[in-house]
Amino acid sequence: MTPDRAHPSLITFLSDYGHSDEFVGVCHGVIARRCPSARVIDLTHGIPRQDVRTGALVLRAALAYAPPCIHLAVVDPWVGAAGENLRRAVAVRAADDDRLLVGPDNGLLMLAAEGFGGVVEAVDIGHSRERLQPVSRTFHGRDIFAPVAAALAAGEDLAALGSPLPAGELHRLELPSARIIDGALVAHVLRRDHFGNLILDASPDLLGAAGAKPGGAVTVQHAGRAHSARYGATFADVAAGELVIYQDAERMIALAVNHGSAEELLEAARDDELIVRPQ
Amino acid sequence: MTPDRAHPSLITFLSDYGHSDEFVGVCHGVIARRCPSARVIDLTHGIPRQDVRTGALVLRAALAYAPPCIHLAVVDPWVGAAGENLRRAVAVRAADDDRLLVGPDNGLLMLAAEGFGGVVEAVDIGHSRERLQPVSRTFHGRDIFAPVAAALAAGEDLAALGSPLPAGELHRLELPSARIIDGALVAHVLRRDHFGNLILDASPDLLGAAGAKPGGAVTVQHAGRAHSARYGATFADVAAGELVIYQDAERMIALAVNHGSAEELLEAARDDELIVRPQ
Amino acid sequence: MTPDRAHPSLITFLSDYGHSDEFVGVCHGVIARRCPSARVIDLTHGIPRQDVRTGALVLRAALAYAPPCIHLAVVDPWVGAAGENLRRAVAVRAADDDRLLVGPDNGLLMLAAEGFGGVVEAVDIGHSRERLQPVSRTFHGRDIFAPVAAALAAGEDLAALGSPLPAGELHRLELPSARIIDGALVAHVLRRDHFGNLILDASPDLLGAAGAKPGGAVTVQHAGRAHSARYGATFADVAAGELVIYQDAERMIALAVNHGSAEELLEAARDDELIVRPQ
Repeated sequence: MTPDRAHPSLITFLSDYGHSDEFVGVCHGVIARRCPSARVIDLTHGIPRQDVRTGALVLRAALAYAPPCIHLAVVDPWVGAAGENLRRAVAVRAADDDRLLVGPDNGLLMLAAEGFGGVVEAVDIGHSRERLQPVSRTFHGRDIFAPVAAALAAGEDLAALGSPLPAGELHRLELPSARIIDGALVAHVLRRDHFGNLILDASPDLLGAAGAKPGGAVTVQHAGRAHSARYGATFADVAAGELVIYQDAERMIALAVNHGSAEELLEAARDDELIVRPQ
Repeated sequence: MTPDRAHPSLITFLSDYGHSDEFVGVCHGVIARRCPSARVIDLTHGIPRQDVRTGALVLRAALAYAPPCIHLAVVDPWVGAAGENLRRAVAVRAADDDRLLVGPDNGLLMLAAEGFGGVVEAVDIGHSRERLQPVSRTFHGRDIFAPVAAALAAGEDLAALGSPLPAGELHRLELPSARIIDGALVAHVLRRDHFGNLILDASPDLLGAAGAKPGGAVTVQHAGRAHSARYGATFADVAAGELVIYQDAERMIALAVNHGSAEELLEAARDDELIVRPQ
Repeated sequence: MTPDRAHPSLITFLSDYGHSDEFVGVCHGVIARRCPSARVIDLTHGIPRQDVRTGALVLRAALAYAPPCIHLAVVDPWVGAAGENLRRAVAVRAADDDRLLVGPDNGLLMLAAEGFGGVVEAVDIGHSRERLQPVSRTFHGRDIFAPVAAALAAGEDLAALGSPLPAGELHRLELPSARIIDGALVAHVLRRDHFGNLILDASPDLLGAAGAKPGGAVTVQHAGRAHSARYGATFADVAAGELVIYQDAERMIALAVNHGSAEELLEAARDDELIVRPQ
């Protein structure tokens, strides 16, 4: 497929499988069986269960640092509660660097794909010739996604692995969008991390456009309450228990409490609106 | 040894070491030192500590999807409480595909080996020339099992790595056995998983032989109490809090509670008997 | 650099990143991008957060079993609270086997380096040409340490990756030192492990010099209280709930409670003094 790719058989792998069970290892075995020369980089398997949005955000952030190759990702509301059409299995090609992404058609792959110039080719792999039969109801990672990723690593052509699908039919995530209103930053909680930090949908540029200055004080309003925060560079710029607003390692604006949890202090949940103003 | 093997130096690795400590990484280091070309696939290191039966069941399930190669597994009641003869270290060859298994002689390897046609050659590796001396009392993974697996990956012959052992002397696990009695399925709990799902010793065929029909209702009796369950395809086939009996991804019959724990609902422990009847 | 090294592009990796987030996977991606042929062995990412001493002790123990190669380690009081000069990023060459260590200059690397004959060359890599810019404030593993380790794996010369640094300026850890006083062993708690076992700064030889005999009884004094312990080979040498003093798998003297926690029984913390006498 791409004999000149620097990593002809490299696969990155992200999921919500965790490490308590053998799910990740079984997928590695399936890959090794189909493509003995494949190498797998585990990006993380610690995505909160069935949390497609966090998976999509983490995948986008992590792939920005990974070499162009085959990107396998599985975060799946797998009990089918969300309806069959969110369970469609797909493989897509992104415009940049010939990156190939394999996973469920529930939006998981799309933030990353858009970061790589968007999807230029998509196939439905639900009945791929590469699938392991009988396909189980609950472990598509093993039965569909890993075999297809391995076949791509072995040099199979994307188009040969399923039925063509218009890119416009792929499921996309609805994300909130921060903006400036009356001189204040109106942002939203995109996700929380394992420390209770809240990652917002705002860039440092947008926070600057609201008049906030690094080192300065801001007010963060949420649910009728106002909190003082410093616009710091790291947690250590505020005392223990105090709120800091900062640029995280992915260059997104985030809220943290030094030695504490911003999520608990603000009692803020996903998609909640926060208004940030310089003091 | 097998120059035509597709994976000449691939090792799968399963243990109860967890990921908090360096045990897994140290074994990887030992392997890389003895056989620089070896590749290791971690099946899982999340087997509950010293739970040999769960290790054996998970190993059998995972290896069904792994390529034929060297299979290292360590789940070890390592404080010696169970007596020295359960601590014997062995390496065995299975009949099918020249699979080699390395681990303690406590039954851990035997379900998988039987799935691959049974053991055709066995050696006691407790005093293998490959062992790292002095052999510690508590870390045989590092000092015996990993070095022997690496030597096999490097092409050493099994017979050269220890003393021959009659296959009949290997320790086997006693597992319960489901059957039909008076038209009802009498099954047992083989193990629980991390969600509190109960995996039974019954196949879908046996459940069908008891008259249960997919989509139908069954009664599950345990410890004098009767529970209603649906014979579903996934958790989502029942409401939250309700019991479902289903075929899991390894094609075993299992019990789950949607958004809950079958173990807690039924108060059932390993080896407990359950009687399943169509309603 | 070392074309005759058995593992020209092998990297071992230890950190306190855990497995819940994508930090480890992102570093793997960065390495694969810079050096496609690099292989990474994860020693452990379960070092308690910011616990540099435990990281240093575990690194020394694990590297004793790893092949000579590039050793990446990141345990970083990364909020900068400890002052900028503890955040210096370094790469060093140890005397033995041409081992190269990459990580923060906070002592993390030094116990291992001293075990390999000490540091013979050191460079400050904080402004290495290999760093990913802009360098974030909180994720030097991704932006500095992983890229430099990967460049070394790709054959770059250590001296070309930063500014020379006198080895004597590297930060060293202060560790307590066990000794014999009036015929008793006066030892200290180096660290606790995940089971609540206490690892002391004493060797079996030193315990023997205090007159303790394997199998015999000793008294362990701490904070004015005296506890009886057996000098055993494994936990199983004492009854459940009882204290055992033993040689651990790294040949250090440790204290454990069979089916319990020595840390809780003794109420002992890091650096606490313990006096051990034969009964």
